[in-house]
Amino acid sequence: MPGVMLALQLDPAPRMVQDAPAPEPGPGEALIRLRLAGICDTDLQLAKGYMGFRGIPGHEFVGEVVECDQREWIGRRVVGDINASCGSCEDCNAGNGHHCARRTVLGILGRSGCLAEQFALPTRNLVQLPDELSDEDAVFAEPLAAGQHVLDEVRGSGAHGVAILGDGKLGLLTALALRASGVEVTVIGHHASKLVIAGDAGMKTLLEEELDDPLTDSSFDLVVEATGNPGGLSRAFNIVRPRGTVVLKTTVADPGGLDLSPVVINELRLIGSRCGDMTQAVSLLTSGNVSPGALIAMRYQLSQAPRALEHAAQRGVLKVLVEGP
Amino acid sequence: MPGVMLALQLDPAPRMVQDAPAPEPGPGEALIRLRLAGICDTDLQLAKGYMGFRGIPGHEFVGEVVECDQREWIGRRVVGDINASCGSCEDCNAGNGHHCARRTVLGILGRSGCLAEQFALPTRNLVQLPDELSDEDAVFAEPLAAGQHVLDEVRGSGAHGVAILGDGKLGLLTALALRASGVEVTVIGHHASKLVIAGDAGMKTLLEEELDDPLTDSSFDLVVEATGNPGGLSRAFNIVRPRGTVVLKTTVADPGGLDLSPVVINELRLIGSRCGDMTQAVSLLTSGNVSPGALIAMRYQLSQAPRALEHAAQRGVLKVLVEGP
Repeated sequence: MPGVMLALQLDPAPRMVQDAPAPEPGPGEALIRLRLAGICDTDLQLAKGYMGFRGIPGHEFVGEVVECDQREWIGRRVVGDINASCGSCEDCNAGNGHHCARRTVLGILGRSGCLAEQFALPTRNLVQLPDELSDEDAVFAEPLAAGQHVLDEVRGSGAHGVAILGDGKLGLLTALALRASGVEVTVIGHHASKLVIAGDAGMKTLLEEELDDPLTDSSFDLVVEATGNPGGLSRAFNIVRPRGTVVLKTTVADPGGLDLSPVVINELRLIGSRCGDMTQAVSLLTSGNVSPGALIAMRYQLSQAPRALEHAAQRGVLKVLVEGP
Repeated sequence: MPGVMLALQLDPAPRMVQDAPAPEPGPGEALIRLRLAGICDTDLQLAKGYMGFRGIPGHEFVGEVVECDQREWIGRRVVGDINASCGSCEDCNAGNGHHCARRTVLGILGRSGCLAEQFALPTRNLVQLPDELSDEDAVFAEPLAAGQHVLDEVRGSGAHGVAILGDGKLGLLTALALRASGVEVTVIGHHASKLVIAGDAGMKTLLEEELDDPLTDSSFDLVVEATGNPGGLSRAFNIVRPRGTVVLKTTVADPGGLDLSPVVINELRLIGSRCGDMTQAVSLLTSGNVSPGALIAMRYQLSQAPRALEHAAQRGVLKVLVEGP
């Protein structure tokens, strides 16, 4: 008989529940005990009702496998790809499992998330962590993988002048990922206190207020839109060169009065980018070439998860972590 | 002393003027007498105040050179690239003159257009027409070049399943251009009477109402958005496969409540496409592989140009032509 557990529940307002049903892992799945979780802007959007979400959120985690039909996994410390694909459709066979139409997504779509004592994922999604990689670094693997995924576009486009628009969690992690791969990056943001993190890692930084006339300063080959707000895309259109590329990381459900005519007139490429490769992210963290520790704003106990969400939603706050019990 | 001429004037409402100053061609420029012009949706938008336009519109033309410091041009029947670039900036030197920041654009930006007795363009913009190509076919060179320009994206993406969304002038010309290059195309529109033109050219056609559930029918590798209306882009996002490409031809100044989240979630590529190569378009028309005659809705005299604009603005009307005096 399945047990019950402590979990954060969104209805969509956040509250703690003591008696959430503990997940029962299916064949090929692992039951994972939470060690450390990170709060992402997507979690904050789900708490506002995005995608009609109800249930347990959370998808950035470090955990320990406690139950699994493949017994060699038990006891391993892991992170995991959040997309649980079907493994047998055309997309999956083409190595495109992140876009499997039948996928579930941890804490986002059809699968309870990691802001709970326990959660389940297929073992093929898991990446075992080396002992020398701390929980505090490893918990950044998922958003760092998303940042590294931008690198494919940078390489594909032959871009030289790359700007990251946004000095939040995702902007800074993307900047760190690109920088670690030798790409020259300019980070543009609103917060001198956060731009320091990029500056300390050897990147050029620019306060958005310091940009030249946004209508004429269109000099970047590639701009990563990672502001997390609807107005960021218009700004990106202003600073990218004609025939340049804008990589869209922010999930903009309603960009309001967005003017798309620059896309046609300047023949821009707007490219959406979501999840990346977890194994690569773990390698990058283990190598020490990316040290995300400066991004940690605060740690909370799982029982305080609603407060953690509240803190993460405050303007200018970077990564808020939640510790497993 | 410069003469005066008959011209269509937008303030932005259209009216005929008898005493518009005739253009004085600068060094390297040709003065061109209008033989035949086409009306484009951009002209209709300019007449509604788009880009704050005031002056003489028109950019699709067949004309005859009547004055030029390079005397060999005089008497030649020509079409022309509408972008008059500076020829010396970084963009121009990189062969990217269509994006020269100092360019003027015939009848659109800083240069009086062709809906007049006479107009001027640099000779390096002109393409001489072979005798066997009629004015009625050649007047389609400019929009056909824009349609052909999509081919670069189709080839670059390795796309197989290509859909053209929109059965208007631009949609049909783009479809004809791709078809002539051997691309398998499905044209999706609202008007059975216009889809017949695509069907007669050997293309698959589909009434938009016949599409399966737009939320699940995402099967095209590449979708060309050429509907000319703001809602077309959301529809394009629905029918393109994950990681597929949407080529945006419609200049959408205000897409209203557009939801861009599919771009991120499905990692789509949205690519703007504007003008193409006029020499290639003239070759395609001369070869007879594209016969745009079926798109002609009506011909007007230049003195009736305001009526021609009115006619072109009616729903479902294809190409309206205007004859020089």
